[in-house]
Amino acid sequence: MASPLQRVDTILSGGFVLTMNEALDVFPRGAVAIKDDSIVAVGPADEIQSRFAADELILCDGQVIMPGLVNTHTHVPMALLRGLADDLRLDVWLMGYMMPTEHEFVNPAFCRLGTLLGCAEMIRSGVTAFADMYYFESDVAAATAEAGMRALCGQSVLKFPSPDSPSYEDGLALTRQFIEQWKGHSLIVPAVAPHAPYTCTDDILSACAELALEFDVPLHIHIAETRQEVEDSRAEFGIPEVPRIKKLGLLDTKMLAAHCVHVDFGEIRSLVQHNVGIAHCPTSNLKLASGIPPVTEMLKQKANVGIGTDGAASNNDLDMFEEIRLAAILAKGATLDPVVVPAKQALTMATRLGAAAIHMQDITGSLEVGKRADVIVVDLKTLHNTPTFQRDPDAMYSQIVYACKSTDVRHVMVNGKWLMRDRELLTVNEQQVMQEAAVLARQIDTFLIARENNVLKKLVAIGGVEQDETFEIQVKAQVENNEVVSPLLTTPAVRVVKQTHYRQYDTYFLFGDEKQGRIRYREDDALSDDGEVENVRTRLTFTMPAKEREFDDAVMLSRSQYIAPAIRPLRFYREYFRPVEEREVQKERRRWHILYQGVLFYVNVDRVEAPADLAGQTFLEIKSQTWSKRDAEYKAKLVTEILAILKLTPDQRTRKEYLEFVGTNV
Amino acid sequence: MASPLQRVDTILSGGFVLTMNEALDVFPRGAVAIKDDSIVAVGPADEIQSRFAADELILCDGQVIMPGLVNTHTHVPMALLRGLADDLRLDVWLMGYMMPTEHEFVNPAFCRLGTLLGCAEMIRSGVTAFADMYYFESDVAAATAEAGMRALCGQSVLKFPSPDSPSYEDGLALTRQFIEQWKGHSLIVPAVAPHAPYTCTDDILSACAELALEFDVPLHIHIAETRQEVEDSRAEFGIPEVPRIKKLGLLDTKMLAAHCVHVDFGEIRSLVQHNVGIAHCPTSNLKLASGIPPVTEMLKQKANVGIGTDGAASNNDLDMFEEIRLAAILAKGATLDPVVVPAKQALTMATRLGAAAIHMQDITGSLEVGKRADVIVVDLKTLHNTPTFQRDPDAMYSQIVYACKSTDVRHVMVNGKWLMRDRELLTVNEQQVMQEAAVLARQIDTFLIARENNVLKKLVAIGGVEQDETFEIQVKAQVENNEVVSPLLTTPAVRVVKQTHYRQYDTYFLFGDEKQGRIRYREDDALSDDGEVENVRTRLTFTMPAKEREFDDAVMLSRSQYIAPAIRPLRFYREYFRPVEEREVQKERRRWHILYQGVLFYVNVDRVEAPADLAGQTFLEIKSQTWSKRDAEYKAKLVTEILAILKLTPDQRTRKEYLEFVGTNV
Repeated sequence: MASPLQRVDTILSGGFVLTMNEALDVFPRGAVAIKDDSIVAVGPADEIQSRFAADELILCDGQVIMPGLVNTHTHVPMALLRGLADDLRLDVWLMGYMMPTEHEFVNPAFCRLGTLLGCAEMIRSGVTAFADMYYFESDVAAATAEAGMRALCGQSVLKFPSPDSPSYEDGLALTRQFIEQWKGHSLIVPAVAPHAPYTCTDDILSACAELALEFDVPLHIHIAETRQEVEDSRAEFGIPEVPRIKKLGLLDTKMLAAHCVHVDFGEIRSLVQHNVGIAHCPTSNLKLASGIPPVTEMLKQKANVGIGTDGAASNNDLDMFEEIRLAAILAKGATLDPVVVPAKQALTMATRLGAAAIHMQDITGSLEVGKRADVIVVDLKTLHNTPTFQRDPDAMYSQIVYACKSTDVRHVMVNGKWLMRDRELLTVNEQQVMQEAAVLARQIDTFLIARENNVLKKLVAIGGVEQDETFEIQVKAQVENNEVVSPLLTTPAVRVVKQTHYRQYDTYFLFGDEKQGRIRYREDDALSDDGEVENVRTRLTFTMPAKEREFDDAVMLSRSQYIAPAIRPLRFYREYFRPVEEREVQKERRRWHILYQGVLFYVNVDRVEAPADLAGQTFLEIKSQTWSKRDAEYKAKLVTEILAILKLTPDQRTRKEYLEFVGTNV
Repeated sequence: MASPLQRVDTILSGGFVLTMNEALDVFPRGAVAIKDDSIVAVGPADEIQSRFAADELILCDGQVIMPGLVNTHTHVPMALLRGLADDLRLDVWLMGYMMPTEHEFVNPAFCRLGTLLGCAEMIRSGVTAFADMYYFESDVAAATAEAGMRALCGQSVLKFPSPDSPSYEDGLALTRQFIEQWKGHSLIVPAVAPHAPYTCTDDILSACAELALEFDVPLHIHIAETRQEVEDSRAEFGIPEVPRIKKLGLLDTKMLAAHCVHVDFGEIRSLVQHNVGIAHCPTSNLKLASGIPPVTEMLKQKANVGIGTDGAASNNDLDMFEEIRLAAILAKGATLDPVVVPAKQALTMATRLGAAAIHMQDITGSLEVGKRADVIVVDLKTLHNTPTFQRDPDAMYSQIVYACKSTDVRHVMVNGKWLMRDRELLTVNEQQVMQEAAVLARQIDTFLIARENNVLKKLVAIGGVEQDETFEIQVKAQVENNEVVSPLLTTPAVRVVKQTHYRQYDTYFLFGDEKQGRIRYREDDALSDDGEVENVRTRLTFTMPAKEREFDDAVMLSRSQYIAPAIRPLRFYREYFRPVEEREVQKERRRWHILYQGVLFYVNVDRVEAPADLAGQTFLEIKSQTWSKRDAEYKAKLVTEILAILKLTPDQRTRKEYLEFVGTNV
């Protein structure tokens, strides 16, 4: 007598089942039975259908039934910044475009819209779970739950002010609140996300580790993405990033480390010993030229290496099929060994191993009884999947990894709930999201176009700018040598306040149109008495065209001038401002700060080294600055008196600037 | 008064036109007018529509109108072998799977079907022209013309027998006939395709160059794909491949060089000076672990570098969108410079530069008046293309390269004729091709499965196998040392014919099931009198389980045994045969060929070095072989006599083989 059939909600039947479990069991004509949010049976189709009756029976002939893909690292709202700026160096891309745009536009509404857009794209490409790191993460979590996806949501903490936190203390408080709000949710796992070792102080990193341990939540961080940051870590802390964060207790948390491009054998061992998940993001690492991580070594050491898309702003999509294929082939090309990271292993990284990397191995990543029903169905009846072979037992993995496209994904289920059926999204209003994204893109375009056409706005966008006094009084004359200033320094009306000695390297960025103003990047090397470099300072100065008039013997300039510390290399500013021309000036400067009649003047004696036309010549400058026009006129009169003391003749004077003597085309 | 409108066949209007011409002109709301097979106008939509009236006006709002992609290197019929064997080393993949399968299955019908399958896939992904290299190229050309695509079709010539030519002379004759047949066709450019420098002799390469020059047709060849082939070229010819083919006159032809992974600065210069096109195939080069070519240097030297998919058997698809993206990001990752090969340049490689690489720059590769109408329309109104930005003038290139998918291609036109409209193929019966491909795949599966289950068939498949005599008579005994043979060698009944001295390294492949037989890979190092290695020979021996019986004092074996020269490394055979266990035997062997009573016997004295259990022990073997059972019985009787001369006692004898003393699991 037949036993009664057990009632389930859904049976997917007749497809090729890739379980991706430890044993990598497959069922060429298999089925999966689902009740509520979980998988209740996986096996041959005949057996499953003889044991279970389903409210919904879905026939999957010619299709593959497999666990949903796990995207182990992304910044999902950045889908809204896809294609905003490409083919740039990391710092120009990040500091020049991403951060200023984020500063202006990122708010809860942005994060909600971007998350819906990113989730919709991920659902379409068969992703069922992802690990995120962004701002306003509570809004990211809410939109993700609305879209029905599973996610580890990491609230960012940085030492800098960020769109959601004016200080890191605020960031930590926000993170605590976020965790308390979301812990225990059926789809969302809240996490602490200190952005990276180089963007956090030791205090911040320790506090994040403590928070993660206190609530037993994961910690999501970028590790060793670029060679530069690892070199900087060695220079500043004497050790690379992994030992540094180990000392600070981060490895004791349930950690997820994105990138790990520049880690060595011992660092990998350390990550493995502490069960740290690694998110390998091959497209992002190539596109931003970060490098190629030692994935083969990681897998050899049995690390939990998953695959990630990174944000759509550096990819430029969230297509895991592309990432899996690239992970498989890049490892081969990088090691010159075609048998490493075979398709089966690459697909394991994108499913079970990826789930382990984001610390969700108990609930997702494979089709196993008791795990949540995170399942996708992939169609093989397409041209680019033709033909299929059966000889090699691994051929189906090969098919999925090397030939399938994300557009072959037909159905997607998360936590027992359908998110896509026959390529129709069920939880996200795709058209509305696309329309809203288009509106926002126009606003961002407008903001950036205005900024791009205005050098000052571009300067302001990267921060730290201060305005200088409006009026400058100056006189300049060609002289024989230093000795010319002696009469001035010994005259009773003058008191020398300070004396300095520099070597100065100036690079001027010119923009074709003079009205755009110009930018000067100056390196000041302060010299000791014996000519050794004691201190180096770099500054940017933006100068608008000046109104200039002769006043007694002096020139009086009225202009807008802004200065900012130049904390990034000259190369950054070159690629960011894209000048149409550059000119260089080098000189050795002796400078005296003097009080003449109680008023401060700067007296410079410059021995010019470049431009070539001036090399070896010496010039004297007298300068003073003020906010007041009346004061400027008074100071111009005093300059005339100083000139008399110096006994300088009118023919020695010049109104030309050093950079006007020669031009070098960029 | 308005001038009358000029009549054209088709206008594509209102889309974002990327012309990909030298100036990289774009028309954000542009149009292209087409008459017969050619482009008659490209420009702003308003202007085009005010000058022309079309039979067919196609509105392309929200779409990109651009030249069709040029796939500069493929083996199009190999679409039928997609996914047949993956994650293998190049030689195992090629010699173990591709060539045996091609030997069995490739014929004109295969090439026709495979070409239709490949063309259908390429049309779907926006390819309008490609460069092919395969067998029965006339059938490839016919099917390509039927599908309506443009192609450079290269008829392969190799030094080995190939599916269409038992000798290279036949191959050259076939190529001549092929060129005569197809030269002047509106879609097909016939070409000579010497497979590669390492698969052709100097004579073949010279003859191919002469043929190409005689008919003024291109020459398509693989160059420097692997490091090994370049090292081999240096070893054999004293120079790398490019100088070698230059000496042989190949650079004087309209040459297309696929891969060029391992070429240096000077070789690139040489290719550029001779206007050689280069086909960069990033997926194939990574997947087969050939390496990463110096694309950035090639572009710096202004080489005509196009992009190719290679065959679908090593990719595993013909998706140029994937290749373009990979070309752009791989160059960045390889040079650690994120600004090299920007999207604009990558797309140029896939269009205008690719057309130049395949020597078709005059007729395709860009949207320019007078060129053939090879045009595609790409849809941007999809989720993964949302949003789009306008600030950066290069944003559209970035969108196409980094975000678009091949499935976004809506319409494809070649030579003024529609091949796809709204993703519906118009020239290929997709369903029929897929069904026929599936039938063929089952046949190939059956062939390979039968072969895989049979070690001997796998051995036969890679060639050179000969069967050994059926009967072997042998006796083996443990002895003190060499001296034991002295009485035999000095007895009058014995004449020593030959004496040799070897060191032998044997690796046995075992397959779990004894009935499968076993494979021995033996390296024989022949030693001179003073113990120097004079000569090295490697052989494979396949042995089926023997029927064994005691006969007088000897053992008589009846068995099937096959030998073949082992022309590839042990590693190849290991990966090809995939033994479940390996065992190693090493010994120093002194061997005498003696005639006893006029009958040939081998007398071996082996000092065993491995397995460890036998190390240092010495054994004597007497052996003889024959095809005749009666002869075997006679020889067994003679062996008993020889044993008497040697005064060996029965307890010294053993029936165990060396490899039975120990096993090492693989």
